[in-house]
Amino acid sequence: MIENLLRPGESLDDLLINNLKIIQADDEFRFSLDAVLVAHFATLRKGAAVVDLGAGTGVIGLLLSALGAGKVVGVEINARMAEMAGRSIKLNNLDECVEIINADFRSLKGVISAGKYDLVVSNPPYRPVGQGLINPNDGVASARHEINATLDNVVKAAKYLLKYRGRFAMVHLPERMAEILSAMSGTGIEPKRLRLVHPALGKKPNILLVEGVLGAKPGLDVLEPLFVYNADGSYTEEILAYYSSQ
Amino acid sequence: MIENLLRPGESLDDLLINNLKIIQADDEFRFSLDAVLVAHFATLRKGAAVVDLGAGTGVIGLLLSALGAGKVVGVEINARMAEMAGRSIKLNNLDECVEIINADFRSLKGVISAGKYDLVVSNPPYRPVGQGLINPNDGVASARHEINATLDNVVKAAKYLLKYRGRFAMVHLPERMAEILSAMSGTGIEPKRLRLVHPALGKKPNILLVEGVLGAKPGLDVLEPLFVYNADGSYTEEILAYYSSQ
Repeated sequence: MIENLLRPGESLDDLLINNLKIIQADDEFRFSLDAVLVAHFATLRKGAAVVDLGAGTGVIGLLLSALGAGKVVGVEINARMAEMAGRSIKLNNLDECVEIINADFRSLKGVISAGKYDLVVSNPPYRPVGQGLINPNDGVASARHEINATLDNVVKAAKYLLKYRGRFAMVHLPERMAEILSAMSGTGIEPKRLRLVHPALGKKPNILLVEGVLGAKPGLDVLEPLFVYNADGSYTEEILAYYSSQ
Repeated sequence: MIENLLRPGESLDDLLINNLKIIQADDEFRFSLDAVLVAHFATLRKGAAVVDLGAGTGVIGLLLSALGAGKVVGVEINARMAEMAGRSIKLNNLDECVEIINADFRSLKGVISAGKYDLVVSNPPYRPVGQGLINPNDGVASARHEINATLDNVVKAAKYLLKYRGRFAMVHLPERMAEILSAMSGTGIEPKRLRLVHPALGKKPNILLVEGVLGAKPGLDVLEPLFVYNADGSYTEEILAYYSSQ
């Protein structure tokens, strides 16, 4: 079964939760800690209807299904990534809970219903085009740089999908925090929870987790910092817990 | 000399830097750690021309003069506070460096020149009217609640005063971070440095320090967290250093 779903140049990795496996290609964008962090950060009600914008390998959908989502739809513009994510869903027997649509989240009308989702999550490209080297692989490049979609596109897509009072959770860079909070507020998704992730105590944060609520009033709960590594280089307890749930 | 400057119901407190003293009234707003934090957080070039919006006791001006400011103008709407801050300046013999103007920073035209200042600092009222109990003393109330001036008023006053590329540093509440960053960006004062202050490790931040630059491009440097207390309840080294400069 697994052999039928794996292609040359791909590997099978363990998500370390619910025995989930994920297919990743050596030359494509591979998921990072960021995806794991946003999956655990998002406020997820049991049975919630969720969309993952820019699903990539599909990792967030798989994790959210393990964490209690009712239905997760991943939207992925890259056809090869979407097809591969589809095979990851199959090999975990999660076809009923997780689905991947090969589509551009800048034009969701006619593709997916508006105003129906409890939660939208995203691990979008972080860097504006023109900032840093662009990867020669188009797929990797558009996962890292805002080639296909900008911050505004992601926030607008979330707004389109969310129910009133629905939540949008995103992982991004702290250096773009001002733009992110402005874009969310300006779109009516008021930022309500924020957490900064630091490599270790005494280091600047390098990851930003933020969640907004469509139609909420201003008032942000800034959580305690999350540290990834202890002084001795081992993972902190909180990070280890993400890899040992259930 | 000191006796002549002190009135009944007032006390003389030590700022623990450069032998600075400050007059505070028992029944008026007294400065807190927040003012000390923003004075040390602001990017201050030697000899800089500075305005403090909502100067209160005048504490920020006194500290910035000790830290190297060329000239600090404090704007204070409350006549009693402004008069008392003026006496604090006199008793420290800082009349040439620090000045208090009894004025409303919502209408600075004709009171103070536009576009001339390197740095604007503020420890403004934190809470919108309607949130929390309003203090029966009008002076204390307007130092805590946005009775005389809202967040937008503070940011607009900073914009009016700053040179191109001048800096605006403010201390505020983390819960208002989204509004603050949006207001600054929207006014052209791009947030460039941000630091969260936590009572202790493992606690949520309760103070926000932010600095923007007029006319800068987006890109925020989020600094390492500042912790106020150690686990044993003593001040951390960084806080102690603020009280032992020179």
